[in-house]
Amino acid sequence: MRLESDSIGTLEVPEDAYYGVQALRAKENFPITGLTVHPVFIQNLARIKRAAAITNRKAGKLKPEIAYAIESACNEVICGMFASEFIVDGIQGGAGTSANMNMNEVIANRAIEMLCGRKGDYSIVHPNDHVNMAQSTNDVIPTAGKLTVLDLLSPLDKGLARLEKALYAKADEFDHIVKIGRTQLEDAVPMRLGQTFHSYASMISRDRDRLKQVRSEMYTVNMGATAIGTAINTSSYYFDHIVPTLRHITGYPLTQADDLFDATENLDGFVRISSCLKACAVNLSKMCNDLRLLASGPKAGLGEITLPAMQNGSSIMPGKVNPVIPEVVSQVAFHIIGHDTTITMAAEAGQMELNAFEPVIFYNLFDSITTLTHAVNTLTDNCILGITANEKRCSELLHASVGITTALCPYIGYKKAASLAKESLKTGVSVKELVLKYELLDEEQLTTILDPYSMTEPAKEEAGIQAVS
Amino acid sequence: MRLESDSIGTLEVPEDAYYGVQALRAKENFPITGLTVHPVFIQNLARIKRAAAITNRKAGKLKPEIAYAIESACNEVICGMFASEFIVDGIQGGAGTSANMNMNEVIANRAIEMLCGRKGDYSIVHPNDHVNMAQSTNDVIPTAGKLTVLDLLSPLDKGLARLEKALYAKADEFDHIVKIGRTQLEDAVPMRLGQTFHSYASMISRDRDRLKQVRSEMYTVNMGATAIGTAINTSSYYFDHIVPTLRHITGYPLTQADDLFDATENLDGFVRISSCLKACAVNLSKMCNDLRLLASGPKAGLGEITLPAMQNGSSIMPGKVNPVIPEVVSQVAFHIIGHDTTITMAAEAGQMELNAFEPVIFYNLFDSITTLTHAVNTLTDNCILGITANEKRCSELLHASVGITTALCPYIGYKKAASLAKESLKTGVSVKELVLKYELLDEEQLTTILDPYSMTEPAKEEAGIQAVS
Amino acid sequence: MRLESDSIGTLEVPEDAYYGVQALRAKENFPITGLTVHPVFIQNLARIKRAAAITNRKAGKLKPEIAYAIESACNEVICGMFASEFIVDGIQGGAGTSANMNMNEVIANRAIEMLCGRKGDYSIVHPNDHVNMAQSTNDVIPTAGKLTVLDLLSPLDKGLARLEKALYAKADEFDHIVKIGRTQLEDAVPMRLGQTFHSYASMISRDRDRLKQVRSEMYTVNMGATAIGTAINTSSYYFDHIVPTLRHITGYPLTQADDLFDATENLDGFVRISSCLKACAVNLSKMCNDLRLLASGPKAGLGEITLPAMQNGSSIMPGKVNPVIPEVVSQVAFHIIGHDTTITMAAEAGQMELNAFEPVIFYNLFDSITTLTHAVNTLTDNCILGITANEKRCSELLHASVGITTALCPYIGYKKAASLAKESLKTGVSVKELVLKYELLDEEQLTTILDPYSMTEPAKEEAGIQAVS
Amino acid sequence: MRLESDSIGTLEVPEDAYYGVQALRAKENFPITGLTVHPVFIQNLARIKRAAAITNRKAGKLKPEIAYAIESACNEVICGMFASEFIVDGIQGGAGTSANMNMNEVIANRAIEMLCGRKGDYSIVHPNDHVNMAQSTNDVIPTAGKLTVLDLLSPLDKGLARLEKALYAKADEFDHIVKIGRTQLEDAVPMRLGQTFHSYASMISRDRDRLKQVRSEMYTVNMGATAIGTAINTSSYYFDHIVPTLRHITGYPLTQADDLFDATENLDGFVRISSCLKACAVNLSKMCNDLRLLASGPKAGLGEITLPAMQNGSSIMPGKVNPVIPEVVSQVAFHIIGHDTTITMAAEAGQMELNAFEPVIFYNLFDSITTLTHAVNTLTDNCILGITANEKRCSELLHASVGITTALCPYIGYKKAASLAKESLKTGVSVKELVLKYELLDEEQLTTILDPYSMTEPAKEEAGIQAVS
Repeated sequence: MRLESDSIGTLEVPEDAYYGVQALRAKENFPITGLTVHPVFIQNLARIKRAAAITNRKAGKLKPEIAYAIESACNEVICGMFASEFIVDGIQGGAGTSANMNMNEVIANRAIEMLCGRKGDYSIVHPNDHVNMAQSTNDVIPTAGKLTVLDLLSPLDKGLARLEKALYAKADEFDHIVKIGRTQLEDAVPMRLGQTFHSYASMISRDRDRLKQVRSEMYTVNMGATAIGTAINTSSYYFDHIVPTLRHITGYPLTQADDLFDATENLDGFVRISSCLKACAVNLSKMCNDLRLLASGPKAGLGEITLPAMQNGSSIMPGKVNPVIPEVVSQVAFHIIGHDTTITMAAEAGQMELNAFEPVIFYNLFDSITTLTHAVNTLTDNCILGITANEKRCSELLHASVGITTALCPYIGYKKAASLAKESLKTGVSVKELVLKYELLDEEQLTTILDPYSMTEPAKEEAGIQAVS
Repeated sequence: MRLESDSIGTLEVPEDAYYGVQALRAKENFPITGLTVHPVFIQNLARIKRAAAITNRKAGKLKPEIAYAIESACNEVICGMFASEFIVDGIQGGAGTSANMNMNEVIANRAIEMLCGRKGDYSIVHPNDHVNMAQSTNDVIPTAGKLTVLDLLSPLDKGLARLEKALYAKADEFDHIVKIGRTQLEDAVPMRLGQTFHSYASMISRDRDRLKQVRSEMYTVNMGATAIGTAINTSSYYFDHIVPTLRHITGYPLTQADDLFDATENLDGFVRISSCLKACAVNLSKMCNDLRLLASGPKAGLGEITLPAMQNGSSIMPGKVNPVIPEVVSQVAFHIIGHDTTITMAAEAGQMELNAFEPVIFYNLFDSITTLTHAVNTLTDNCILGITANEKRCSELLHASVGITTALCPYIGYKKAASLAKESLKTGVSVKELVLKYELLDEEQLTTILDPYSMTEPAKEEAGIQAVS
Repeated sequence: MRLESDSIGTLEVPEDAYYGVQALRAKENFPITGLTVHPVFIQNLARIKRAAAITNRKAGKLKPEIAYAIESACNEVICGMFASEFIVDGIQGGAGTSANMNMNEVIANRAIEMLCGRKGDYSIVHPNDHVNMAQSTNDVIPTAGKLTVLDLLSPLDKGLARLEKALYAKADEFDHIVKIGRTQLEDAVPMRLGQTFHSYASMISRDRDRLKQVRSEMYTVNMGATAIGTAINTSSYYFDHIVPTLRHITGYPLTQADDLFDATENLDGFVRISSCLKACAVNLSKMCNDLRLLASGPKAGLGEITLPAMQNGSSIMPGKVNPVIPEVVSQVAFHIIGHDTTITMAAEAGQMELNAFEPVIFYNLFDSITTLTHAVNTLTDNCILGITANEKRCSELLHASVGITTALCPYIGYKKAASLAKESLKTGVSVKELVLKYELLDEEQLTTILDPYSMTEPAKEEAGIQAVS
Repeated sequence: MRLESDSIGTLEVPEDAYYGVQALRAKENFPITGLTVHPVFIQNLARIKRAAAITNRKAGKLKPEIAYAIESACNEVICGMFASEFIVDGIQGGAGTSANMNMNEVIANRAIEMLCGRKGDYSIVHPNDHVNMAQSTNDVIPTAGKLTVLDLLSPLDKGLARLEKALYAKADEFDHIVKIGRTQLEDAVPMRLGQTFHSYASMISRDRDRLKQVRSEMYTVNMGATAIGTAINTSSYYFDHIVPTLRHITGYPLTQADDLFDATENLDGFVRISSCLKACAVNLSKMCNDLRLLASGPKAGLGEITLPAMQNGSSIMPGKVNPVIPEVVSQVAFHIIGHDTTITMAAEAGQMELNAFEPVIFYNLFDSITTLTHAVNTLTDNCILGITANEKRCSELLHASVGITTALCPYIGYKKAASLAKESLKTGVSVKELVLKYELLDEEQLTTILDPYSMTEPAKEEAGIQAVS
């Protein structure tokens, strides 16, 4: 054990620990979730530390030997080393100061080691004075959060792109299958099964567009703001160069916020990301509900499609296969919608120059993105790609329904058509037969008008029978 | 126009208005929803004013002639008079001070009139010194809110009781109809349609029990607390007698909070009511979703039940009938769940000795109770009472499914049963025939084991064929 | 009374009513909120009916005399006539069919009147066959909803623009006032009061940008989709010209959705609008919380600013002035956040070719926009414009704090600076005196380093004292 | 590797794994959170399996040697063995079938081992036929969930009890300190600091009462329902004895639901628990916000109390100490409120005989309870117990305010008092001096009336100066 001290007092730190007294105190203060800060966040915080060290060095504020040691230590952390040294809980008080100090301590101690010092001898490299130079928790933490969101959104977009493609492929595959459309769960008018999947693909495409749009909110960062936006303790060189340096390191088109106070105290950008994920979750859940409805049965439900069987459906009911993948996707959707409530409340609770509730925002936002990504991937691979259509069943249900009656309205009027539909449902005599029986239209006309396939897309006028009301 | 003044300055008030300068300012400050405070809340606030006048009179603090005039004016307001004099918006700043002062002014001016004074001559009866004597916004407003919740919960309970009864009646009516049960929208095992409705009735019964339980949270009031709980400006007599007096007037078993600070500053009781309404809304929406599923079709859906046709279902599709009543109930459920979020946030936002956000809590909470009541009533009258069963359809779907296979497990094992179910679904040969074909059980045994009705309730052991694994 | 009939049966309708049997049934089925559909929505639905009549006329599908009568009737409704004829509740089952039929009936009866017929004689102009020709509830209702959102967003943007301007003006007015910044409610480092207001202005500016961005989601409409997206019962001419006609009538750059199924069944666009309003609400509430904190007191709080006194603050505490405007804004924010939950759930609940829960989405979404607009306007007019600064108080608190200590770190290190801050807080001796006492820096250096004003903006390097760690 | 097969096909399972093919498939299907099912849930599921084995054995349905092996295996799992064998994700499709089958497989394989078989040889002990005998996912999973809630609520209650006690102790400790009360962040009337803490203690006491009340909802279980409530595949003996057996094993007063359909398909009980946790979270967050306000400063804030310094507050600002513990508690509150949204949506989404979304409910509900427990414990230990009062500061702020003016109202009227308050705030002359100057009351009277301490509790009438309005 080595002894370390801070303003609060002295504490024993394990001899070989790279973290220091402040991380240790935080670990004891916040035993909340048992989970530590997200590893991608750790990487990005290290990227920021590296950018700061480079910039301070070039500004002539940080001695080159110290700066180089810090930069090397940062690189190691970026590569995933020292993962177990980041010990503070994901949900923590203090606006992320603990996460920041944990990083400052790990980097400092690793740099000290590189400079042949003993861990804990902060006279060589100091967590605050050197590693945290020209920075504050209040600029590095939100910036690391934004970079993490950007990093995590990429696999999500990849997953959504694969899903979109799979849905378009199903749209093509099922384009010839005519079925009954349903509104409010009631038989409506004919459509094609391919159109169902095309609509899902269109929807996912829109979600992707939106996510691309909102991710640009993450490009504006407040590096250089330090504590509250005044840039206290930054040099002029650092202030001007920290964001370009970070842009270079990360590859993202980052810009420094015009209003650094605003960028430090307001977290609405994260609300926007969360809400956009929520809209995507809403869409996915709606589609998954549809898939479960369309695949319901196999005998006492709609049964128009069959989802791939992924596992035994029941511990008691033999042969039962359940739509487990759509089910898990809806659950993830609910999960994300709940996170959005949390993120909203936390963002609203900011006070004056800072929002101290950033950690819970990040904890939930990162979880939203990753669980959504995983849900999308299992949905594509374990469900969508293997969906088959039950063409015969589609046809049976279509012809059992009176959905084609709608097409008669322009010719015989809504009221007459309604009474035919009613009579057909009651008697079982087909609508077509009733039209002929009442001599409302002749058979040739009817054959054209009542062709279900032609009802599934906009009219080509010349083919129609003219009706003027 | 008459001139009235307050700390802010002087304002013209319509000559015949009973409200005064403070209500008028509030109206101008809060043009938010265009809706005024709930009329039942107004009544209850007047009841409180009456109780206070009586108590102050008996305490020797309020001259009898003034007190009697105030009491009479209160009675008129309780009877619904002067409704248009309550002009402040339901969502208002100031923790309800505007609603309270609007009441104080109306009562004062009406009492002045009774005492042959001119409206606005507050030397005769003063809104603050007389009408509001020994009270504060901070005790009368939450108390009026609680009384209003109690008043509004009664018709809700009546509605739920009617719904429960209607559901039990349907449970009896449909008790003989065997159908396939469904889990995860997939065919499961046999059950009776009556059991479906019985489960809804049981659920509603539980909701009623809970609402009864939580309404008791409304009985503890903070009258006597005045501004923050210290009872400043109350006489000893008033402090001891105001709650008994109010108990007498309202008929509710009210008690004065032991900790008046807590009772003044914390609004968690309303969160509880809201959450309990939310649980009820969740249940109702689940049931309504089921009704829509069971009634889906009429031809290309499940079609096991038929909901009463309440209106044309479509402007374009003739003969279409939609489940409009269950749909409106689910919408009300979503509405109430949203209100619960609002109420939660407002309750969390209290600061020190007061929660200034009570008005938005009341606005939403009262709306939750009344819309829920209306939804429940239309559900009972326009849907549940008229539901009919499609016995033939229930039987068809039951026999099309392989749900009875489960009953074979104790005799032939899960694995074997699963392969039979699979084969039956694939080939269309019934499970029974397959069992006989493979000589797994004899026909007599099978007839007993595979009787769907007997599967719908717990075994009477003696009737079974013994199997020991 | 006149008799009207529909598929359900016959009903008495008041003789002079323009609405008909279907509106009447709906009114009885849905006695939920007591409030009818939003008047701007009614106008937009009439605009759509007008566009449809014109297009059907030009398509040769609707006889000119009928079409012209319908178009005239629509114009009257657009002008606000017949407002009391729209009788269906804002929250209704049936995906808006009742609102649509209410409109179809009013237009039909008014057109019948113009054509010298008797109201109810639908052989002259039929609600379904003529007024609703080539339309379905499922395309006109979402389209009317989108137009309504667009209409309502304009005054909101105007309000936000005024607020932004007022905040920038305050930023200028208070730019010279140095004060202590606070993070986590604790004394931090110096800043200028103008910067506080500038950050609010920047935030509102961003909200405006976002609302502009998301409103474009409303430009894609599904007119022509009719029932489910197949365009059943539209003519080729109508299908191609209905959106351009509506674009012309409304002045909005509307386009027809590429995928009409998607555009009919998915309501995620409204979730996006709601979420964007929510982000704005979060920002406004945060700012209003700050205003209340900064204005707290007047004597036992921070008291750095004074909000204009808008009304007496208390019914019991004389002279009390409360921050009633910021309070009402936060309440509206909670209200909107709750609505967002409702809208999210309703959007998620769509099934197959339609989302039947649109009415509750519109009910809440329109309310979100209008209450937010009203809140923003009262905030600007009754609060922001009248805010004054308490310069002396700002200065006192700044100098009482040890916030300037941070500026010493680059020169004496974090650890030493921390111990000075601690000693100063304990002993009351100023940090500056302590630095001199311990001879850490000389007075001239200190005067430069510890100048609070210079700490409020990024360093101009040449002015600084060089320090290299 | 060994080969195992199910209805889907054959899969390689690690030779030494106790889990089997079904758990493995589930693990691959649901790679969502990376976290497995809660360990306490695993224990409770094993308790249920044990109870079932005992009951089936006694019913003569399960051969004793198999039953005993199962019971022993269950005991090992209950003791925490095989923890790493439970491999399925906490958020999973299939209503918990995967978690149930994972358990059935682990128990079966361990029992097989005990009976000298080879893992995977399910002819000896079969996961479905033996371990899952007379059970279904649909009864064991909700029951295990309820038992887990009960188990987790105990440490929460202990934590709340300690918090309550700590708050009452502070109420006593600070009972003599008179301070200014604040409503709407504005100076109100005098109170005692002890009363502040007493109100928090009262609030926590109420939360505890509620949690005790709602936990009784967890005592009603649906064991015996099997698949949907019909009790299919249970023996009469088992049906009657499974709940008593489980009651004995767990020590909880469990009862079998009267309506097993209802108890299987409706999850509103979990909504209730979640909502009750939410109300508690709301209260805790409100208190923590107050603590941060009261401790704000130390110099430029209210500073009436000091929270124990738990860690350095800032990476850049030396000497800064932040209220990190209250901050983390509020974050946990937001977290729990978000979970409540998720749980509500999932409960609403149930369909017919089952709610397939139970896993996400449990995932979030268990997290709510445990994070709340941890937050409460750190709040008590690291914050409340160490709070100190700044008596001098309380007194200064009290006397700077004009809060005592309220006490003059009964004697000089609200209007006069208001003008004095205004004058005092403007001129700095004390209210007392102004009363004397204007000769409204004499000094002796004033001394009695304006004694701040006496204003902090209800009047003892005899001590007062009589005033009759």
